[in-house]
Amino acid sequence: MKTPLIECVPNYSEGRRPEVIEAIVEPFRHRPGCVLLDYRADKDHNRLVVSLVGEPEPISEALIESSRVAVTKINLEHHQGGHPRIGAIDVIPFIPLRNMAMKDCVVLARQFGMRFYEETGVPVYFYEEAALKSERRALEVIRKGQFEVLKLEITRQDRHPDVGEPKIHPTAGATVIGARKFLIAFNVNLGTSDLKVAKEIAKAVRSSGGGLCYVKGIGLALQDRGLTQVSMNIVDYEKNALYRVVELIRMEAKRWGVPIVETEVYGMIPAAALLDSLAYYMQLSGFEPKQVIELALLDQLGKEEQK
Amino acid sequence: MKTPLIECVPNYSEGRRPEVIEAIVEPFRHRPGCVLLDYRADKDHNRLVVSLVGEPEPISEALIESSRVAVTKINLEHHQGGHPRIGAIDVIPFIPLRNMAMKDCVVLARQFGMRFYEETGVPVYFYEEAALKSERRALEVIRKGQFEVLKLEITRQDRHPDVGEPKIHPTAGATVIGARKFLIAFNVNLGTSDLKVAKEIAKAVRSSGGGLCYVKGIGLALQDRGLTQVSMNIVDYEKNALYRVVELIRMEAKRWGVPIVETEVYGMIPAAALLDSLAYYMQLSGFEPKQVIELALLDQLGKEEQK
Repeated sequence: MKTPLIECVPNYSEGRRPEVIEAIVEPFRHRPGCVLLDYRADKDHNRLVVSLVGEPEPISEALIESSRVAVTKINLEHHQGGHPRIGAIDVIPFIPLRNMAMKDCVVLARQFGMRFYEETGVPVYFYEEAALKSERRALEVIRKGQFEVLKLEITRQDRHPDVGEPKIHPTAGATVIGARKFLIAFNVNLGTSDLKVAKEIAKAVRSSGGGLCYVKGIGLALQDRGLTQVSMNIVDYEKNALYRVVELIRMEAKRWGVPIVETEVYGMIPAAALLDSLAYYMQLSGFEPKQVIELALLDQLGKEEQK
Repeated sequence: MKTPLIECVPNYSEGRRPEVIEAIVEPFRHRPGCVLLDYRADKDHNRLVVSLVGEPEPISEALIESSRVAVTKINLEHHQGGHPRIGAIDVIPFIPLRNMAMKDCVVLARQFGMRFYEETGVPVYFYEEAALKSERRALEVIRKGQFEVLKLEITRQDRHPDVGEPKIHPTAGATVIGARKFLIAFNVNLGTSDLKVAKEIAKAVRSSGGGLCYVKGIGLALQDRGLTQVSMNIVDYEKNALYRVVELIRMEAKRWGVPIVETEVYGMIPAAALLDSLAYYMQLSGFEPKQVIELALLDQLGKEEQK
């Protein structure tokens, strides 16, 4: 069996105190099977976003250790920042990457949620694919009114947590845990300064406008460059391939005689999403990811580690 | 410093005896830093091709061990097969992959060649980028007349080996060692059964016909499917990107109203070659390989191993 690989992107409500940030991140370092890809603290948001890749077990272990630090060091009663939050450890999504199905990630998220409550005393809500109630699929529903409102309303039956007693942790609030698909942040820059064009195209391509079902997007001005941008999240890249998004935008832009100047992938992207679009453009037939040296190597290293 | 990564594709003159093939391959298994990606024995060619990826030192160690087995088990005096050869260990090319320049691979090939002679007694010729004489860049020049002719002509000054006495190893012959770029086998299938069209296009696109400098290619019939194929080797994918090859063929095929039906990558390909072509088609701007999760992971695993 091949090593199951997940991504995990825990969000902590701390973006200002470097020593706390480092203490939270420390458990993710030097741990076999848990790779710390990136962490970014934002002072305005007062929030820390950590990117992990690895195997479920070591990532779970490190999350518990890191969460204990966050519970000790962060007090939501004194926390202010631009980003909505209900907990010291605000959100923990598990994302299947390789050799792991979404349903396995749902099981992982729920088991982890129960353990998380046992070990930290922080109540847990399950969201997205791991939601136990359909309305809790949406993060914004769970987080409504943030910590300040939830601490009062948590006793109301419709706001009871999925795991734990219906009372907030006095300093660490509550935590949202779940499973979701990998999200790609993708921008298409247009050769026009006319913001109306970008907004119209964003509307045509996004799901809320009747476009592609797994695309969210808005039109933005890139004033310094005299360009505009269709800024998107692709929330299911297997169903809405990047090439389809690009070519749909190109088609819509023709109406105004506007060219695509460039495209941008913001942040991380799985190899499969790139190979899929390349196969379209190059008409590649019968291509297997294991033909890519680096991917074959990664598979082999995974096998070695298992022995 | 990041771990230097090479590919190495040793070719052995044994494609028929499974127990010998397994004994030759065994030293490449279970060795940290040396990953056995693939090995293929061909009975008609009577030849074994091994694909290794990893770090220079462990790959070199394993090559010496494996070569000792080949010297013991293979006798060129009794060897027959369809593929040209001069030695039991016929060719060993070192190919830079990541965090390693071609010049480092040349140094590696030459140092390894000297050690190889010391440990096996088999004389060595250096080829391609590691050649000491310009005419020996070409493998076919070194291998002219094969084992049967070389064993007589090796005493002639122009056929003296680069390392070792000017006499052949009585059973294991001589070995060609060198450094070269990664070679991509790439086919473009055309929607015509007219072989003349495929041949004309192959001629237009390949270097010998005045086309792209690092493309070799021929036109072939795919009779079962009623198609034809431009079958190519891209010998420097950094200079002759795949997208340029595809679009040049598309342009030429227009003359006959012939469409590209599909393309095929045969065997392994480095991620960089794919990302480069994708960036062209998608107009990707500022994209970094480390944004690809799997490549970032591979880098991190490399760093972990070094500690």
